Amino acid sequence: MTREVGITELALRDAHQSLMATRMALEDMVDACADIDSAGYWSVECWGGATFDACIRFLNEDPWKRLRTFRELMPNSRLQMLLRGQNLLGYRHYEDMVVDKFVEKSAENGMDVYRVFDALNDPRNLERAMAAVKKVGKHAEGTICYTISPLHSVEGYVKMAGTLLDMGADSIALKDMAALLKPQPAYDIIRGIKETYGEDKLIHVHCHSTTGVTMVSLMKAVEAGADIIDTAISSMSLGPGHNPTESVVEMFEGTPYEAKLDKAKLSRIRDHFAEIKPRYAEFMSAYSVDTDIFDSQIPGGMLSNMESQLKQQGAGDKTREVMEEVPRVRQASGFPPLVTPSSQIVGTQAVFNVLMGEYKVLTAEFADLMLGYYGHTLGEYDPEVVEKARQQTGKEPITQRPADLIPPEWDTLVSETEALEGNDGSDEDVLTYAMFPKVAPTFFKARANGPVNVGKDPDELAAERAAAASDGKSGPVRGPIKYEITVNGRTHSVAVKPA
Amino acid sequence: MTREVGITELALRDAHQSLMATRMALEDMVDACADIDSAGYWSVECWGGATFDACIRFLNEDPWKRLRTFRELMPNSRLQMLLRGQNLLGYRHYEDMVVDKFVEKSAENGMDVYRVFDALNDPRNLERAMAAVKKVGKHAEGTICYTISPLHSVEGYVKMAGTLLDMGADSIALKDMAALLKPQPAYDIIRGIKETYGEDKLIHVHCHSTTGVTMVSLMKAVEAGADIIDTAISSMSLGPGHNPTESVVEMFEGTPYEAKLDKAKLSRIRDHFAEIKPRYAEFMSAYSVDTDIFDSQIPGGMLSNMESQLKQQGAGDKTREVMEEVPRVRQASGFPPLVTPSSQIVGTQAVFNVLMGEYKVLTAEFADLMLGYYGHTLGEYDPEVVEKARQQTGKEPITQRPADLIPPEWDTLVSETEALEGNDGSDEDVLTYAMFPKVAPTFFKARANGPVNVGKDPDELAAERAAAASDGKSGPVRGPIKYEITVNGRTHSVAVKPA
Repeated sequence: MTREVGITELALRDAHQSLMATRMALEDMVDACADIDSAGYWSVECWGGATFDACIRFLNEDPWKRLRTFRELMPNSRLQMLLRGQNLLGYRHYEDMVVDKFVEKSAENGMDVYRVFDALNDPRNLERAMAAVKKVGKHAEGTICYTISPLHSVEGYVKMAGTLLDMGADSIALKDMAALLKPQPAYDIIRGIKETYGEDKLIHVHCHSTTGVTMVSLMKAVEAGADIIDTAISSMSLGPGHNPTESVVEMFEGTPYEAKLDKAKLSRIRDHFAEIKPRYAEFMSAYSVDTDIFDSQIPGGMLSNMESQLKQQGAGDKTREVMEEVPRVRQASGFPPLVTPSSQIVGTQAVFNVLMGEYKVLTAEFADLMLGYYGHTLGEYDPEVVEKARQQTGKEPITQRPADLIPPEWDTLVSETEALEGNDGSDEDVLTYAMFPKVAPTFFKARANGPVNVGKDPDELAAERAAAASDGKSGPVRGPIKYEITVNGRTHSVAVKPA
Repeated sequence: MTREVGITELALRDAHQSLMATRMALEDMVDACADIDSAGYWSVECWGGATFDACIRFLNEDPWKRLRTFRELMPNSRLQMLLRGQNLLGYRHYEDMVVDKFVEKSAENGMDVYRVFDALNDPRNLERAMAAVKKVGKHAEGTICYTISPLHSVEGYVKMAGTLLDMGADSIALKDMAALLKPQPAYDIIRGIKETYGEDKLIHVHCHSTTGVTMVSLMKAVEAGADIIDTAISSMSLGPGHNPTESVVEMFEGTPYEAKLDKAKLSRIRDHFAEIKPRYAEFMSAYSVDTDIFDSQIPGGMLSNMESQLKQQGAGDKTREVMEEVPRVRQASGFPPLVTPSSQIVGTQAVFNVLMGEYKVLTAEFADLMLGYYGHTLGEYDPEVVEKARQQTGKEPITQRPADLIPPEWDTLVSETEALEGNDGSDEDVLTYAMFPKVAPTFFKARANGPVNVGKDPDELAAERAAAASDGKSGPVRGPIKYEITVNGRTHSVAVKPA
């Protein structure tokens, strides 16, 4: 009677990346894994660039070990990751053999579903990674990054889905990282893909909830035939994160759709993260609804970046000018989607234009973008700006796939890694070094010390709660706090607590 | 081409009632009124029982003056209020002349649209108030309180709409105070009403956002033909509140529907309340999604009430038992919707049953409910419990409209009010006293002192912000704080600040 809609749980990756700066430690996830594994999810997203980065940068945790732990704790689940195409989890293009190696090793360590995307939606940047996933027999999900611009259209997205299917995509992901996907386009794009390429083509929809409209977009996506949607357990949902899993389950009641998840298990997963969440309060994003992005095209994270750049230059009053400059820079560069790293590249150039005059100085990254070194964008590049990029950098514009210019690099990466103190001689370590060459050496050295939980200690948190509960009116000092106070040259050790 | 959907802005009433315990002072609203007045809303909800109560109880503010201020500041808007039928804004039934007077005076002071409801959905409790609104030529909105139970059905709600239309309702409100209205029933009920009584019948939908599904329900309601929906400006939205106004505007893009609101004005309204909101942080509800209510039938506010009652009795461990008892008590009393005051009446009786044995002791209110003194519920009353209520109270069950038993009371209310210090001799004061006889005397006495803003002082708030921004790691003491510290009998004035 009803059609089953698959659900991907985001709590272990994108949810804490979006809500708490990717800081959640593995030890705060393990107790939820048995319930997640058996709740009935289509897949469990648990790995990606930022989680990998945060592991070695902040948590002294081996991301490969994290993956193996998930594999062990969730033997019945499809584990899913987000892969930046030819960039893998890093910020540059890699030579194809590195791409192959990464996919091979991550599959070996337990990965099942690879959501492969490119910030510019350039299919050539997805090709090798998709092929590598197919080669190891895993699920290759070809991804459309959703954005809005005068050039982007339902027809264009449907066409891109065709290109991805031609590459052998096992499913198509519609990735709405900025919560721009409104209900009607969600419906139209998915209906378009199904009608053009067949109702049996798997479509997987990922929306953030920032703008407050995408819960409706998920419903419309399902009405249009979407097979799988991404959600986060309610205690890890909303704001800059995602729509709540339990609400999506309830939303389908009485409709022709159903998400067959075990509600008792969802409750336990929710309670687990509700308990953990306060530990990471200092990393948490403000919990709000932002619809400005529909007009400004500027995601929240990008805006705060630009504002802090302006402030550093003593030009905090120029924010509005920069916001008006962004759409022009985006047009000059062919309307890239604004997502890491294109959002930073476009945003910083807009700041430069306002502070120093239009395209007087190009950032190295923006020049590369204009010269094709990141790949194609959908629109034409402004030829005058391309010319400036050429003059400033001495580089020539390219039209081939950027990775074709990279010479074989695996052996070099291996020997550089072998020279690092603390490396364990594995291909996994070579890949960690390849992704984050500046952070990996420090991590390898410190790895043996074991993981660091940057969340607040549960005992400390409990003490704070007790103090807050016992007296809401005790002023800024809530517990016995020791100070050294020097009066008239004599130092006293003084304990202060509410009277 | 598109059908215009009307929007009611809730920021001035239900939004701050739901999010910040109804504490917002008039002075924190006035600067937003010009924008609200000209943004294009269908109506502006700005008055109701809790706002009236909070005005005189906490804010030393005359609620009638608040209404006149709104009227003056928003001359182009329909002002809207929530009226508890024969209870008006109080907690008992009033004799009909008091109902007439209240409607007459509130219309005189500026009210346009009356959303008239009854906690039990007993139409007899709406009849007089609806007639009074019609008599003064204002908009009478007949209200269905939405709940779920084995007896409640789409057909039943459609039938109730017919009863309200027969009473002369200018519109039908579907009021979903607990965020229980899922997309499919929203669609079915509204389609049912339109198909049964005519597509021209105005339908107005009010949903809270607590469960995370009702944004979709609003969309489905509009697809089914709903004419007006309730929203709150984004900075005053979500959690136990409502869906965000701006998101609803955006949601319609590309659909056959449109909300014609001025986006620049919405931004200013949002910014105004975003600025004000931190002042009320201590009153704010936690910002979360709760889907448990779909199974438990217990709204969040009711649950926390019951938990505190249990704790006072040293029975904090009985929460689960009480939660399981609530549906049984609800069944015994004919499945009332759970909304003030029925939620408290049912919840407290469930606590009594668990602590003292099933129906060993009835609360006075629950006995009255079982004997018909609040009106009809949809289902049958359990005859054994009715018998116990009769024995315990010595009262007989009634079947007539409860207000028919009340003798004329206006003259008594007038003379009692005239005896109160500080009363100004107006009918408005009589009505204030009639609604809140315990609070009004104190308020009249203190009224001349002028309004009290219980929010944090803006300067204090700014100082706190500056301190927090300057040093996130300075521990619990954030600014120079002066203490008097007595050591060995000598008192020292000491300033403490982060080292």
